[in-house]
Amino acid sequence: MKVNVLKLKSYLVDVLSFVGMPEDEAKIFSDILVQADQRGVKSHGVMRIDGYVRQIERGRMKKKASHTVVVENPVLSVWDAQSSCAHVISHFAMLEAIRKAKNFGIAFVGVRNSNHFGAGAYYSKLAADQGMIAIVSSTASPTMAPWGGKEKLIGNNPLALSAPTVDSPTVTLDMAQSTVAFGRIDNIRTQGIPNVPEGWAFDKEGNPTTKTDDVYSVVPIAGYKGFGLAFFIDIISGMLIGGNTGARCANGPSHSFLVMDPVAFGKDIDAFKKELEDRIAEFKACPKKDGVEEIFMPGEIEENCFSKSQEEAEIIDEVVDQLNALAERLGVEARL
Amino acid sequence: MKVNVLKLKSYLVDVLSFVGMPEDEAKIFSDILVQADQRGVKSHGVMRIDGYVRQIERGRMKKKASHTVVVENPVLSVWDAQSSCAHVISHFAMLEAIRKAKNFGIAFVGVRNSNHFGAGAYYSKLAADQGMIAIVSSTASPTMAPWGGKEKLIGNNPLALSAPTVDSPTVTLDMAQSTVAFGRIDNIRTQGIPNVPEGWAFDKEGNPTTKTDDVYSVVPIAGYKGFGLAFFIDIISGMLIGGNTGARCANGPSHSFLVMDPVAFGKDIDAFKKELEDRIAEFKACPKKDGVEEIFMPGEIEENCFSKSQEEAEIIDEVVDQLNALAERLGVEARL
Repeated sequence: MKVNVLKLKSYLVDVLSFVGMPEDEAKIFSDILVQADQRGVKSHGVMRIDGYVRQIERGRMKKKASHTVVVENPVLSVWDAQSSCAHVISHFAMLEAIRKAKNFGIAFVGVRNSNHFGAGAYYSKLAADQGMIAIVSSTASPTMAPWGGKEKLIGNNPLALSAPTVDSPTVTLDMAQSTVAFGRIDNIRTQGIPNVPEGWAFDKEGNPTTKTDDVYSVVPIAGYKGFGLAFFIDIISGMLIGGNTGARCANGPSHSFLVMDPVAFGKDIDAFKKELEDRIAEFKACPKKDGVEEIFMPGEIEENCFSKSQEEAEIIDEVVDQLNALAERLGVEARL
Repeated sequence: MKVNVLKLKSYLVDVLSFVGMPEDEAKIFSDILVQADQRGVKSHGVMRIDGYVRQIERGRMKKKASHTVVVENPVLSVWDAQSSCAHVISHFAMLEAIRKAKNFGIAFVGVRNSNHFGAGAYYSKLAADQGMIAIVSSTASPTMAPWGGKEKLIGNNPLALSAPTVDSPTVTLDMAQSTVAFGRIDNIRTQGIPNVPEGWAFDKEGNPTTKTDDVYSVVPIAGYKGFGLAFFIDIISGMLIGGNTGARCANGPSHSFLVMDPVAFGKDIDAFKKELEDRIAEFKACPKKDGVEEIFMPGEIEENCFSKSQEEAEIIDEVVDQLNALAERLGVEARL
């Protein structure tokens, strides 16, 4: 069903404030969750709030975000998030990376001992809004087996990249290292749909399955390549900054935010954006295969969805029910 | 057939010196080409030498490598390679990135107006040899259509990552953004094999094909994700450093070399390598799917092949014939 965006954010702030999150942080958190739904990325939107609230309730997620600084130089920061809300601390980490990228043109902020940070696109887009390029990634709890294996030992570690444009939507690639994010399978489970599409999942024996009930792990993209990419995200966003990988992510995954400022690379920022627009125009004008109506740039479908969801976002009916049940359980007045 | 490695390198140095390359640079170039064959990555090995020699002959590739410095700060360099041999200039660029990474823990060297740099793994492995992590990528002439299109407009832009280990082979992922590198299809053509495996290629209409003669473009990995990754390599390894993308790569592609030094991230280097070894051990011990004998880490198969090819490398018979024909055409005495 369609839900008014302001009402949705207000509901979230009420619920998060009730469980002890400071209002300014609850607003950041709500904006990030609702943006995912507005972009049509339901798997990382408000459907997750019940889980986040439970993390706060059992002390897995701190009510107020804070961090210690582990490493600090003009180019590099490593923060220990000490179980902060990942969305809030990641928002601040990206702002720090953007600020630092102005020093020498490139900056890296690592955040360890965090939580699930949702849709990486939100953070990479913050950099593009400032005329910069960003690469964001995170370790995650195991959802994939190493290629050839059958036990889940590695996350489908998300990767999000953004680059700034003039009139076109910001170019944003936000991808799991599996064919689909695990959240999309959760989504199918929530709706009681008995089958998942072919190529999405393996069962406990590592064999392909389409039965929702038999899904155990997700399929890495391009086989060994998807496993390899996830492994390198474990290395760079995890081990390099003293963060957790694999099953240890239950104690908090870790993220990295790499930002590049084209100005420091000798580019006039308007000329850089224009050059990117020209490349987009080249792709958009490509002769199409039979049956294809339009060629989309990375993130364009999501940005189009966002534009159409300024006032109302589409939320799955069962998720609305869950959110209302959550408010009722907590004793918060707000309802959707 | 098996060819003696020293004989192969000596042949290459003779040929390259004959067409005017300084001997020290010819040695670097030969080492890189032969390493690809020793690692079993034939598509990027000596089978390419005829093409490189022709580039030197027609002035597309300069005999002696040199570059101008476009941007320079403690973290960042952008070089204009002015049509140097890509292998030689990339070797120097990676050494510069390794040196710079010691300043603040992260460094980026961009090289524009270069040539085809071969197997990216060679360069990323240089950093791992120094205890660092590297991400190497390059723009390339079009071999893929944007997702949904049928005209080749973007390269399958290679990406290579390496990280240092203790006893295990250096972890190295070297991948095109297509199911397979185009060189593997060239390889099949050279051998006169009529069919390519399913999932590798599209014909002129953008339809899947297995007929070698009908191959027009290669298939991006995971559909829109592979196109998106290639696009971001265009942005970061191309546009950001004033380099060429798409069809303009005929005037020289451009590369980027990003290096991270774990020591600057507060890691003890031995502890970091050990942690990576532990993660490898975790993956290697994963229960295997039916029919799988061993779980391989990224680059492990290639490193095993390299270990077994210290004295002799396997070279396709037709390629040996081509190399001998090249020597004969030039009037160089060396034969394989």
